[in-house]
Amino acid sequence: MRTTKILAIAGSLRAASINAAFCRAAQRLAPEGVSVTLYTGLGDLPHYNFDLEDAVPERVIALRHAVAEANALLIASPEYAHGVAGSLKNALDWLVGFDGFVNKPIAVINTSPRAHHAYDALQETLRTMSATMIGEGSMVVPLIGDCTTEDAIVRSVTASSQVREILASVRAFVGLEATIP
Amino acid sequence: MRTTKILAIAGSLRAASINAAFCRAAQRLAPEGVSVTLYTGLGDLPHYNFDLEDAVPERVIALRHAVAEANALLIASPEYAHGVAGSLKNALDWLVGFDGFVNKPIAVINTSPRAHHAYDALQETLRTMSATMIGEGSMVVPLIGDCTTEDAIVRSVTASSQVREILASVRAFVGLEATIP
Repeated sequence: MRTTKILAIAGSLRAASINAAFCRAAQRLAPEGVSVTLYTGLGDLPHYNFDLEDAVPERVIALRHAVAEANALLIASPEYAHGVAGSLKNALDWLVGFDGFVNKPIAVINTSPRAHHAYDALQETLRTMSATMIGEGSMVVPLIGDCTTEDAIVRSVTASSQVREILASVRAFVGLEATIP
Repeated sequence: MRTTKILAIAGSLRAASINAAFCRAAQRLAPEGVSVTLYTGLGDLPHYNFDLEDAVPERVIALRHAVAEANALLIASPEYAHGVAGSLKNALDWLVGFDGFVNKPIAVINTSPRAHHAYDALQETLRTMSATMIGEGSMVVPLIGDCTTEDAIVRSVTASSQVREILASVRAFVGLEATIP
């Protein structure tokens, strides 16, 4: 059985980030046949500048390599002022037109049930970049109240089963994708 | 006559950026009583991280100071993959909740007549941040064909008169604002 390799990207850099906690929980809850790798370079990427495409910075090469290696991406992002977090969008700006990104299956997770602007904008951007959105794997996972840490997500029956459901959907989607001639 | 101080921010870092050319042209075309300062620190800002608010990085302090000092902002941004440029959004993320930004009059310029996603999203974000949008000063200024450099904008009768119109609108707006008790 081939392993489905998922690269998880959290859109927030704060240590107590709920979205980062979600990604770490997904890593812990990954079933057999699914591996979740955390992308942790978001805060160290240079700001996107087309002029640098002639000599692509090392950290951008590392991001592109990680994306190309993954069978699917899992993106969990906060909303800042009704928009996508700038640092996450910056990472995506470096992936526009990158061959290893085109047709990449992506699940987008919204951990804030009351926010929708960034979630919608992120999906619009990803579709524009020719990603393949995983409908079944993209969902609102309300991480509120006490359920905002990695441990709490793993312990929560509701949250952990949602995470498992998402990972199973991604795995099934990637499997389906692989069979398309 | 008090000078209206405008801080111009271009959302692209490439040397040949049309939006940066627009900002430089605005600086050259500024009439008496209007000064346009270019914000050039976008690419050097750290990525937004709430954890850093306890010891705000110098470059963020400089951005906030420049914003607080200005009577109005002029923002010209490209659209990347149907979204706001990540580096520009990152700068805005550092200004969310900053006192010196609240109620700041802002004109947003869209230099790409065919694009509207980033322009719309940017205005949504700025309104959410409690900026005061200058309706008369925000507009589409089509900089296409040959009219994509600072010199060409200054020489173009159409483009230069649009730039002058925008600056006059900003000045009038700031003047009006100042008279509100």
